Amino acid sequence: MTRKTNYHMSAEEFRRFGKEVIDWIADYYEWVESKPVVPDVQPGGIRTMLPVDPPLTGEPFSEMLDDVDRVIMPGITHWQSPNFFAYFPSNTSFPSILGEIMAAGMGVQGMVWKTSPAATELETHVLDWMASLLGLPDKFLSNSEGGGVIQDTASSAVLCAMLAAREKATSGVSNRQGVSGSLVAYTSDQAHSSVQKAARIAGIGDANIRLVETDDGFAMRVDRLAELMAEDREKGLTPFFVSATVGTTSSMAIDPIPEIAKLCDGIWLHVDAAMAGTAAVCEDYRWINAGLDGAQSYCFNPHKWMFTNFDCNCFYVSDRHALIDALSILPEYLKTREHGSGAAIDYRDWQIPLGRRFRSLKLWFVLRHYGAEGLAHHVREHIRLAETFETWVREHPDFNLVVPRKLNTVCFAHSQGNSFTEQLLESVNQTGKLFASHTKLGEAFTIRMVVGARDTELRHVQNAWNLFVNKAGEQSRRTSK
Amino acid sequence: MTRKTNYHMSAEEFRRFGKEVIDWIADYYEWVESKPVVPDVQPGGIRTMLPVDPPLTGEPFSEMLDDVDRVIMPGITHWQSPNFFAYFPSNTSFPSILGEIMAAGMGVQGMVWKTSPAATELETHVLDWMASLLGLPDKFLSNSEGGGVIQDTASSAVLCAMLAAREKATSGVSNRQGVSGSLVAYTSDQAHSSVQKAARIAGIGDANIRLVETDDGFAMRVDRLAELMAEDREKGLTPFFVSATVGTTSSMAIDPIPEIAKLCDGIWLHVDAAMAGTAAVCEDYRWINAGLDGAQSYCFNPHKWMFTNFDCNCFYVSDRHALIDALSILPEYLKTREHGSGAAIDYRDWQIPLGRRFRSLKLWFVLRHYGAEGLAHHVREHIRLAETFETWVREHPDFNLVVPRKLNTVCFAHSQGNSFTEQLLESVNQTGKLFASHTKLGEAFTIRMVVGARDTELRHVQNAWNLFVNKAGEQSRRTSK
Repeated sequence: MTRKTNYHMSAEEFRRFGKEVIDWIADYYEWVESKPVVPDVQPGGIRTMLPVDPPLTGEPFSEMLDDVDRVIMPGITHWQSPNFFAYFPSNTSFPSILGEIMAAGMGVQGMVWKTSPAATELETHVLDWMASLLGLPDKFLSNSEGGGVIQDTASSAVLCAMLAAREKATSGVSNRQGVSGSLVAYTSDQAHSSVQKAARIAGIGDANIRLVETDDGFAMRVDRLAELMAEDREKGLTPFFVSATVGTTSSMAIDPIPEIAKLCDGIWLHVDAAMAGTAAVCEDYRWINAGLDGAQSYCFNPHKWMFTNFDCNCFYVSDRHALIDALSILPEYLKTREHGSGAAIDYRDWQIPLGRRFRSLKLWFVLRHYGAEGLAHHVREHIRLAETFETWVREHPDFNLVVPRKLNTVCFAHSQGNSFTEQLLESVNQTGKLFASHTKLGEAFTIRMVVGARDTELRHVQNAWNLFVNKAGEQSRRTSK
Repeated sequence: MTRKTNYHMSAEEFRRFGKEVIDWIADYYEWVESKPVVPDVQPGGIRTMLPVDPPLTGEPFSEMLDDVDRVIMPGITHWQSPNFFAYFPSNTSFPSILGEIMAAGMGVQGMVWKTSPAATELETHVLDWMASLLGLPDKFLSNSEGGGVIQDTASSAVLCAMLAAREKATSGVSNRQGVSGSLVAYTSDQAHSSVQKAARIAGIGDANIRLVETDDGFAMRVDRLAELMAEDREKGLTPFFVSATVGTTSSMAIDPIPEIAKLCDGIWLHVDAAMAGTAAVCEDYRWINAGLDGAQSYCFNPHKWMFTNFDCNCFYVSDRHALIDALSILPEYLKTREHGSGAAIDYRDWQIPLGRRFRSLKLWFVLRHYGAEGLAHHVREHIRLAETFETWVREHPDFNLVVPRKLNTVCFAHSQGNSFTEQLLESVNQTGKLFASHTKLGEAFTIRMVVGARDTELRHVQNAWNLFVNKAGEQSRRTSK
């Protein structure tokens, strides 16, 4: 038997299969609308279609493409469907996909400036552009003491912010000696679970994070924040970090950042605008940035509502040295002249992992393809559709808004109460015609309709509403029998 | 002025540009060999070619493609060049790129099972395959108490391992109350900087991590580990975590895992085989797995030496509940029936971030395209080339091996000492004909030649050696004048 001397796929095969895959993707966006948004599979169902043993010899690539259609696609929840209204959007776009493709092709590793100068500099540049497009404070620009970096997620961003705050509050002692029990962090009881997760990871612990009560609109109560800080100070504890939210996950509530900032003298204020932040690309929604002048860090996710492939979180700090002091370790094998001179940014020191993909490429493509005008247009459209849906809820005698709509998120329930609403959501989702998800607001089981998929139009929102109304009617009739 | 109603790229344009991009990538792998590996640019040089202001209106996509060639490529360090011998390989392959492309196209978010069952199940399945291909212990398989997950990097993997160990050692107290100062972690003075970074992040601190001395081969000294543990116990401290390395970054040293494991009764042993782990796909190199039976977690990076796009770290634990206990927070809006029943894995609880890309797709394609046979073939080839290079070093009177070669990594220096060697490396790298990087081993400034790029063949290694020899000759003649 002759052994092969080269098992790589040839460039010719790649050209052929690559073009098939491009067509496959374009086709996908054409047919996805007609398929159930959530697949009808049971746990373990996909694995039974896969061979138990790993491949010992190579297989033709055409078989893999066939298997994607046969095995994988029946188990996909279609985030790109125009009928996807659950959780948050994770919308993408063709320019972004093209950026991901080029980044994958180049296969560069941007851990330090030298390992691909263009990857670092494009990232810095695009994050400056983004700050300008959203009207963020100048202190987040790279020509200030601060700057921006792409993180994978808002979870990692809040962890990095908390670590920088921890180091600053302890003048470097926490990295050297470990965490002592005296640091206290604050966020609202509606904040994303990632804040609590960050506090656990950073050694702060649940006992030292205060989940500040929220008001009727589920925004942080500043009076309670002030009281809690005062109580903690009296106990000899050190308030060091506040994470405020612009657009909570459950109900899109917006914490009163200007008032919170006033309490944060010497305390690191992080603002998480994961989904909502995108809206600032429209001048008429730029009010969501109010108070950012008083924040030490800020993040939002183009991978949620700005047509950019996951992962892409834009994270800004007003004091880059605080971040680097918390996260930099420089072994000999990573020393470069450019680092030593301070002339170049080494983004490895701005994040948890060492390695980094070339993620700014897709964001560059998105910003240039759409321009501020195109992005603002689509964001306004999504908000307008959510507003229309809200009107329907308001006007229907059997449904009620749990809170007034904010931006693209409608929180509603059926008037027959929690278990009726829960059952309604389940039966609507089971049709496969849409996917919405739930939360609890106060005691209310709440359906969340979030409008943000790339291709969602009025007809999708209209169909969704009709389905809720019809299913509720059926359910009422069954119940009253 | 009429406003556009849709700013998206059309499917037709995507098909056209997508196919251009596929050809661009195939072309790239044809011309990359002939270009300088490291670009000749100064910090800030790329940014001067980019417009200061962000785009307000959209631009044609063809201009972006032109700008990639005009602005970006002159600033790229070519990790995929066959003349790239620096740091570690970050090799990719056409099947992997195709997997990335499909994942980008689908745009699914695999944070929990329900948000794309196939993404979760394929990941579990492929990680089981991988464990089998590498001969890892059964306790890392998904049908045991343990299991595998894809992390972005080995840095995140060691952090997750340390957090799980921290929780376990404190019976959950550290998540609830924060970290106390009594926990101590151990790794060698040759371990990757990510271990120390993890200890800082996790609130353990530099003062509570022992960098155990290494032997002449730069492997951890077990006698010193035992002594340090005993001293710490005497001080009332609690040893809770050891990170051992199979293939250190500097010199590919392999810590004596079996002996270390014996000391780790009740202490979490993590094994980081970031680059070297791949070699176990060859049965003749499977000895690198010795002692893994005694480890609680293990990771290696297919994105280093297994033809898989960054990011892709395979992380295994023998007790998945320890990991989940450390990292799970379950807010209402993420509750699903499948989670509640325990029937499905929600990988969000196995990692730092919440969101996740569909990374198993590319790994599935790589394993199926190459099969174990193809992967083993190329790994053996890389090792053979490194061995050849080692022989040349050994036989040349002016060069010496700083340590014997292990696997694909040759550490060598010029006999005229540190500053001569440092200058030699710089002048060789400045030719652009190759890129190698350095480390310090003991007092020796050391050049590292790591063979692992997809297309590296004998002629590239031969050219590299000739260049070192010739440049050293020139430098000697200049010095002796």
